[in-house]
Amino acid sequence: MIDVPYLLFLGDAPDPLAAKVAQGIRDWRPAYAKGQLRMPGCKADMRLPDMTPAEAAAAGVRTMVIGVANRGGKISREWLEVLKEALEAGLDLASGLHNLLRDEPELVALAAKLGRRLHDVRVPSVPYPIANGERRSGKRCLAIGTDCSVGKMYTALAMEQAMRKRGMKASFRATGQTGILITGEGVPLDAVIADFMAGSVEWLTPDNDPDHWDLIEGQGSLFHPSYSGVTLALIHGGQPDALVLCHEPTRTHMRGLPGYSLPSLEELRDLGLQMARIVNPDVRVVGISVNTSGMSRDEAQRYLAEVEQRMGLPAVDPFADGAERLAEALDAL
Amino acid sequence: MIDVPYLLFLGDAPDPLAAKVAQGIRDWRPAYAKGQLRMPGCKADMRLPDMTPAEAAAAGVRTMVIGVANRGGKISREWLEVLKEALEAGLDLASGLHNLLRDEPELVALAAKLGRRLHDVRVPSVPYPIANGERRSGKRCLAIGTDCSVGKMYTALAMEQAMRKRGMKASFRATGQTGILITGEGVPLDAVIADFMAGSVEWLTPDNDPDHWDLIEGQGSLFHPSYSGVTLALIHGGQPDALVLCHEPTRTHMRGLPGYSLPSLEELRDLGLQMARIVNPDVRVVGISVNTSGMSRDEAQRYLAEVEQRMGLPAVDPFADGAERLAEALDAL
Repeated sequence: MIDVPYLLFLGDAPDPLAAKVAQGIRDWRPAYAKGQLRMPGCKADMRLPDMTPAEAAAAGVRTMVIGVANRGGKISREWLEVLKEALEAGLDLASGLHNLLRDEPELVALAAKLGRRLHDVRVPSVPYPIANGERRSGKRCLAIGTDCSVGKMYTALAMEQAMRKRGMKASFRATGQTGILITGEGVPLDAVIADFMAGSVEWLTPDNDPDHWDLIEGQGSLFHPSYSGVTLALIHGGQPDALVLCHEPTRTHMRGLPGYSLPSLEELRDLGLQMARIVNPDVRVVGISVNTSGMSRDEAQRYLAEVEQRMGLPAVDPFADGAERLAEALDAL
Repeated sequence: MIDVPYLLFLGDAPDPLAAKVAQGIRDWRPAYAKGQLRMPGCKADMRLPDMTPAEAAAAGVRTMVIGVANRGGKISREWLEVLKEALEAGLDLASGLHNLLRDEPELVALAAKLGRRLHDVRVPSVPYPIANGERRSGKRCLAIGTDCSVGKMYTALAMEQAMRKRGMKASFRATGQTGILITGEGVPLDAVIADFMAGSVEWLTPDNDPDHWDLIEGQGSLFHPSYSGVTLALIHGGQPDALVLCHEPTRTHMRGLPGYSLPSLEELRDLGLQMARIVNPDVRVVGISVNTSGMSRDEAQRYLAEVEQRMGLPAVDPFADGAERLAEALDAL
């Protein structure tokens, strides 16, 4: 678990997109985002107070989060100096980079000397159990997709926000690096050892109040040959009571696989239900989340209306329209 | 890849079952099994020449394989002395134990000094790729089960043997510790990092002759919540042309999960085909392998006849009857 609040390190981001981790924290956990640190040439801006590590520490910040992708697959000398400055100022560091903080001897030595923590959220830090398949109290909703990267994380975060607004008990449960940095906790599922995948999801979504919803971040797709096993572990470890179907209608083939076309929403619904019923016979599909960023607003509205009518389920783009109708659908269950 | 042939270390096996790894090598790769090493009190016997490590080395043995489970979760002092003797005699060591050889400083130091290798087959030693889903030349058959531990490895090994007898090109592809020790190579799938599971199976079953069959060792079950993700990675990484359904009819619930009943063979057939068609639309179910060890011979014969008639597929117990009819079914494809 990462201590909050955060100073968001934007480094020398070449463009705003490179800082999507910082943007996610800014959007979904604004209370965690106390300030930002930009280096010369930084093209990203979270519209937060610019702070040095010392100023951030004085303002109560506990951790500096690497909110930006690095270039060239290494942590540069310039970055290292800023990271060391943060440790000296009393902050922990948290990173989802492929290059691990713990592989930088200078950071390791300094953190050890000062009693600071280095969080590499790509690396599991918990000895997860083997899944036992037992029912847990509380309710769980999982976003599943026709493909990878169709907006499953965004959907779950938007649903959490909409549910809390309605006064419902809801917790986003992160299963990827960005989600873990946003919330400060979670399971880096794609880095978990095969035998413990489903168990790590059970661990992530323990017993809870009967009216509490875990909103589990989805990964991969049952139809994506590279990652389908991860998706099935999420379904069988998560024991969802509710599924939300996620889709990006303009995609011409599965991400990274030119030879594979996307399944239809009906195919996703049927296979998702079939797999989820193995662990929860009462599972329901409650709604559809469509990423319409590749369509005009008119096209998007027509598409959503057509899908809603065809599938008999609320169909929304949570980015454009919010996730209130998906929250309502869960509330009505 | 482990050098062959082997000296089978049976240690102080408390009973024959504890030496099932050694038995597997003896049964399926008799040419690899040059001798055995038994310590005082050993209750297992492979009916092989008893050899000291020095005698084994003189007879051409290259590796001593730990063919027996250890007691108490540690490698005992008595074992260590024999393992060191094997290294001194010029043999490598190979083990599928949870306790790793590489965690024993004495073995590590001695192996380094002598230039010997320590193979811990539970730990992946290859940087597997992410699966790319592309079709490969050659053919592949995968055994899938209604549950874990219903005879999938045995089925694939028996099919390999029967196919080779018929003059077919066939290679058993190990995905578990025992299978890897039997054949000297393979992927320890349950220990692979989630993102690379399907890719490791693609790596294991590369392009081959058009008439060559890989017989992929199955793991887990699509219906077993603890391990279903591993099974789906096998299906999507393996791109099977043929599936064999494996079942143990006397089991009252899924292994380790009292709350879960087994699926029917029909359910396994339908879900297995549905998942496999995502990567190979032409996949077929070719036969059924039943572990009838819990039934009388009469019951078994009646059960197999009933299943064969009901499913319209050859149904055999490969342990009792051999796998010739499953080999025939592949040959007829």
